[in-house]
Formats: sequence, structure tokens, C-alpha cells
Amino acid sequence: MAALCRAALRRSLRRPAPRGALAGHRAGRGFAAGQPIKCTAAVARAAKKNYWEDALVLEEVTVAPPQAGEVRVKITHAALCHTDAFTLCGDDPEGKFPSILGHEAAGIVESVGEGVTEFEPGDHVVPCYQAYCGKCEFCLRPRINLCTSVRAFTGAGVMKADSKPRFTDSKGDPIYHFMGTSTFAEYTVLHQESVAKITKAAPLEKVCLLGCGISTGWGAVWNTAEFEKGSTAAVFGLGAVGLSVIEGCKIAGASRIIAVDLLDKKLEVAKKWGATDFVNPSKLDKPVQQAIVDMTGFGVDYSFDCTGNVEVMRAALECSHRGWGKSVVIGVAAAGKEISTRPFQLITGRQWMGSAFGGWKSKLEVPGLVDRYMKGEVKIDEYITHEMKFEEINKALKLLHEGDCLRCVLAL
Amino acid sequence: MAALCRAALRRSLRRPAPRGALAGHRAGRGFAAGQPIKCTAAVARAAKKNYWEDALVLEEVTVAPPQAGEVRVKITHAALCHTDAFTLCGDDPEGKFPSILGHEAAGIVESVGEGVTEFEPGDHVVPCYQAYCGKCEFCLRPRINLCTSVRAFTGAGVMKADSKPRFTDSKGDPIYHFMGTSTFAEYTVLHQESVAKITKAAPLEKVCLLGCGISTGWGAVWNTAEFEKGSTAAVFGLGAVGLSVIEGCKIAGASRIIAVDLLDKKLEVAKKWGATDFVNPSKLDKPVQQAIVDMTGFGVDYSFDCTGNVEVMRAALECSHRGWGKSVVIGVAAAGKEISTRPFQLITGRQWMGSAFGGWKSKLEVPGLVDRYMKGEVKIDEYITHEMKFEEINKALKLLHEGDCLRCVLAL
Repeated sequence: MAALCRAALRRSLRRPAPRGALAGHRAGRGFAAGQPIKCTAAVARAAKKNYWEDALVLEEVTVAPPQAGEVRVKITHAALCHTDAFTLCGDDPEGKFPSILGHEAAGIVESVGEGVTEFEPGDHVVPCYQAYCGKCEFCLRPRINLCTSVRAFTGAGVMKADSKPRFTDSKGDPIYHFMGTSTFAEYTVLHQESVAKITKAAPLEKVCLLGCGISTGWGAVWNTAEFEKGSTAAVFGLGAVGLSVIEGCKIAGASRIIAVDLLDKKLEVAKKWGATDFVNPSKLDKPVQQAIVDMTGFGVDYSFDCTGNVEVMRAALECSHRGWGKSVVIGVAAAGKEISTRPFQLITGRQWMGSAFGGWKSKLEVPGLVDRYMKGEVKIDEYITHEMKFEEINKALKLLHEGDCLRCVLAL
Repeated sequence: MAALCRAALRRSLRRPAPRGALAGHRAGRGFAAGQPIKCTAAVARAAKKNYWEDALVLEEVTVAPPQAGEVRVKITHAALCHTDAFTLCGDDPEGKFPSILGHEAAGIVESVGEGVTEFEPGDHVVPCYQAYCGKCEFCLRPRINLCTSVRAFTGAGVMKADSKPRFTDSKGDPIYHFMGTSTFAEYTVLHQESVAKITKAAPLEKVCLLGCGISTGWGAVWNTAEFEKGSTAAVFGLGAVGLSVIEGCKIAGASRIIAVDLLDKKLEVAKKWGATDFVNPSKLDKPVQQAIVDMTGFGVDYSFDCTGNVEVMRAALECSHRGWGKSVVIGVAAAGKEISTRPFQLITGRQWMGSAFGGWKSKLEVPGLVDRYMKGEVKIDEYITHEMKFEEINKALKLLHEGDCLRCVLAL
């Protein structure tokens, strides 16, 4: 299916790569006059409640050349995340269709639009659904991400330059972008604010995971909670994000990590990541927050919700330590759901907080995470339980639904 | 009414004051063998929904001598706080009756029990409902109060030494303590952990307020929120606590302070305290949180609930700044009430927190607050809108209910 676009990539890679910022700028202008690329994408034509039943349609799409401030990227590897499924099944009230989902990936720059000086063809990159412009009040503030530069456009599924998508189907009808990334396609177009350039030494089939899940878990521990050495933690939900939270706690020097999940087999996995205690709420005769308070005296120093379930978020808050417990919401809840607790929980010193993408300033900090992986300081390989061809994406969604998969990486 | 107990106080004050720690220890043993004191107290015989309709009964009570680790104090001045009314009206499910309420006061040590070396007769003190032992895991942690040393006993209305109250009525029946303070009595007995010794230069009729409300407001700003210079704030509810939050923000260098209340006359008062903007939610055509976001762009850096209303707590959170807004719950909610919000509010960087007694380590830090008042760094006098005799306590409760009173100080 991908002959045409692979040939295009080979052509672009054979072209001598411009060097330096000025050369990149010139190259940008040159590539902006580039040609549309026809390639294969997995299109979400409409929301489908049973998203694991062949919900995506593999079809040929046309990817327009990057316009001013944009980068066209050949996606080499894409992983699946529950947020893709959340939108695909219709739970996201702001989901737009038809669209190309996907936001956890890696690839190689094919061409750049006018004015783009930071990237050049051949650069290895990780698309970042959370942008970073370096100029807005959010980017300028230490430890805060949530850049606003392209937010209105990525939310609407279009590009900032002309408020239109760069994807069209075989009939010439538009297909919307998703999270500013749309990585379930052989080629995609990104705002330059949504691209992190990484070392070419890094294996793209591994570091693609840093575009979302595991970066989010580490960042929730290190940036949002500001985890202090010797502290205790409880982690609710043991998917890839929950395990990366456990890894983050372990690296930060946790004295005790309580893993919580309804499935015993997940608790077993958590042991390998560094969890020291294991709680299956379905086997308790009391609320899980009470069980954890009983285990610890006054609760854990830090707790993390990695489930998206608002009742679990409450339990996580209420098992955090009287006086100073911090509870971090990471999971994305279904539309309309609300968290609740007695205000006494806060009056007695607990803090309720959360973060998106672990608070990382994406394009600024993802390259450093790649470097930490290359030095062996953090895991990635262990989170990849399945590898498939891009054509098998619907099978991969089924695996995600069945819960035995941490991360499935698709090769495009 | 108080002839007997005033005479007792004069006797105790005529006695040469022991000096130094060892002398204090000896004195303690001496006074522990002291006599019961008969004096007047305002007794809450039962919960009364209309607490402002003569709910307290002025009667003669007997105050037993202090036992080991206890201090008997002649209360000279007591102020009224909404928490007293909260218990008196029956909203506090843990309220015990009959009891002697009151927790915002000042007085003079009359005698001390065995083993008490920090206090001696004649010391000027502020009773502290939040104890400080200096030894438990809460006291040892910086910026955390919530000492556990006597909590179980003060919660049950009794003293730790024998799990009994020190008050009895004319029939010899026990009367329970309240918050470990019971300052609506001419004499009270306190755990030594619940007493802050202050300079004798300070006017007791003023610094009695530091036992609760205004210390709480300042501490919520300086300790809990860790307010940063140049930041913006919104303060919901403009009683004494709300005004002390405004004062705390102003002292911390706030660039903008938005005062929020349903009564225009309270907004007028807030202006004198340093508020720069004024919002009356009853006059808006949109939710107050939306109005404040519209006024500020992305919300205020810090928001404070000083109402105890859970809907207001939600509004306060939701008007705090995307990315880094901190919202502090100070008000005490009615039993069974819960706070709610969409978890997205936390995911996008807001923090929900709270504190009791502003996070101050009471006996350790209240003396320093007294000193700051003596240097003119903080207001107290301006919060005192009414002064009455102790006998007028029911009239003072009525004033509190009517809402025109910030603080009424009773002279005992």
C-alpha cells in the first residue's frame, strides 16, 4: 500500500540535507512549494462505540505540503493509547469526524514550510500533542506546559495557517487532524510548535512511546507531584501510564510503592517495575482508601490516578497523607463526570492536582527524555508488549481493549 | 458574678511567681494540688438551631485544678467565631453537649499541673485549638500543623490525663470541653500543648483574635498558598477571615485582589483592607467563576474560599489560573456537604488545597504573630467591630448571626 509514499520519502532523503539555521530557512521555502503526497492512513470515519471492531478504515489520503510554520513528517512508528480509543468510541464530546487519530509516534521530517528554521528534512522527531512555542505565558513559566499558541486550531482539527486540514480523501473531501498530531498516517503535517527533534541515534520504534503515555507518568511524579526521596506512593491503574508512574517513583527514591488494580495479573507486572505492596480493591471488605490508610497510618505521601475513573480519583485523594498528601489526577474521565470529596479532606492538608503530558515542555524536554533512555536511566522497551504492521491497526485496537497490551507499536 | 474567681485570681497572682524551668516544675506540682474554682461559664446545654436566640446559659461551674501536663487559665477576653455557632446550632455531627464553647481568646495562667515547665502563673497566653507538641510526625514536618498529641481527647471533649472533663455544673454533672479550649468561661483548663505564651506587653483584648480567624486567613495566604509577590487573588466571603486573607495578600505584594461577596456593604469594607476589584455574584448574568476568568484572561493565581459553601469552593477553584492556579479552602462546610468539579480542571493545572488554622504551628508561631502586631506589621484592632461584657454573650451571638459584626470581643 505504501509504495508511493515510501518512494517519496526515499526521494526526499536522497536530497542533500541543508545545514544550519539559514539553510534550513531556505530549505523551508523550497519545500513549501512541494507536492502533495498520496499515502495510506487509518481514517476514523465516525465514532464507533465498539471501537475494537474494525472501526478504522485504511484508505489512501492526500497530504498537502506544509505551509508556513509547518512540518511534514514521515511517521515510521506509531503506538496506540487509550485517548485514541476514548475519541474513537465517541466519549469525547469534542471529537471531530472524519479524522486521522494517533498521537504517540516517531518519524522523520520529509519537508518544512516557509519560515521553519528549526527542522530540516531527515531530522528525527517525536510529534507532541502538547505544543511548545516558548513565548506564551504558559511556556515562559517554569514547569508549566499547556502552551496556547496552536491550541484553538488543534482542538478544531485544523492547521493555524489557514484554519484548514492538510488531509483530503480520494473524493477531495477534508479529513480532520487530531490533537495536532494525526499519527495514524504514513505522512502527517504538524505545527512546528508540536515537533521535538531528537538524536538520530535513538531507535524510533522505541522512543515513539515518549510522545504520550510513559512521559506522562514520569512527569506526573517528577514535575507535578515533585516527589521527594524516601516518600511513599499509591498508584491506581496499572496500564503503561501507571507502570511509568511506578518507575518514576522508584527512580525518585520511593520507600514504598503500593500498586492498585482490579486484575491480579497486572499487580504481578507491577512487581517487576518496582511496586512493593499490592492491593486488589475487589478483594477488600472496606473501601480501598481506608485499606491504604490502615496499611500506612495516615496515608501515602503521594497518590496517582491512572484510570480516568472519578471514583478512583476520589479514593486516591482520600488515601493520601493527612497534612501533606498530594494526589495527582492523570487519567482522562468520560465527558460529564465529576470528582467529589468532603472539603474536610483538603482542610486537613491534602492537595488535589493533575497534569497533562506530565507537565513536560514538550519540544524542549522530550529530547532529554530520549537521551535518558539512551543512557539506560529509564525503561522503554519493557512497555512494548506487541509489535505489528500498520495494516493491523484494528487488531491492535482490539488488543488495547482486551487489556493484555501495555503498548503495541505499529511499523508504518 | 465573678467575685469568687476574681478573688482566686488575685490570690494566685499575689503569690510570688516561680522563676525558671525548675521553679516552674516545682510550681506545677504545687498548683496541681490546687483547689477547684467556682466561676461563671456560658454553657451550651444542647444544640439549638436558632443559636442566636439565647442559646447559651450563664451558670456557675466548677473548674477542677489542672492535672499533669495541664494549665488552668483565667480567660480575660474571648471573641466569637462562626465555628462556635456551627457547633451550637447542631450542624457539627461531632458536637457534644452540655459543653462550654469558645476557642478565640486570651488570658493569664492561674496555675499549672504536674510536669508543666513551660508556663507559670501570671504568664499571658492565647489558647490554641490546634495543638503543638513538637514531637509527632506532623509537628516535626515544616509548615504542617495538625498535631495529633491530644486530638482524640479534644475531639471527645475531655482531657488526656484521665479522659474526663475538668468542668462540672452545680449538680456535679460533667460539662464537656470544646476544641480543647472552652474559652466561654472565666476559667478553663487546657493541655499544655494547646497554649501559646505571648509577651505581657500585648493587649489581651486585641490579641485574643489571634487564636483563630485572622491568623487563619494570613496563614492560608502565606503558609498554605505560599503566595508569590506580584500575583493576583480572588477572595470569596468577606467576614473577618476573608478580610484577613485580603490583608495577607496585600502584605505579600499582590498586584490585584478581587473581593467577592453577595453584600455590597461588605465589598465596601474590603476596599479599606486593600481589595482592588469587587464582584457581587447576585448581580452577574453568568457564573462568578466565568466572570473572574473574563476579567483576568485565564483566572487568578490564587483563590480563597472563606464561606464554607461548597458551591463557592467550586467557583473559587474554577476561577483560578489554568496551568498554576491554587485554590485554598478555608471555610468549614456543613456536615455531609461535598465539593465537586470536572477533573479536567485539575488536569489543566489547577491545585485544590486547604488548611486549618492557616497551617500555623500554634504555640510555636502565635507568639511571633503577636510580635508582628506589636510592631504594626499586621492589623487587629480594625477587625474588632464590637466590645461587650461576657454577660452579653447571647447578644453577641445575635450580632454574629446578623452579619454586621466582624469580631465581637467579650471582657470576662
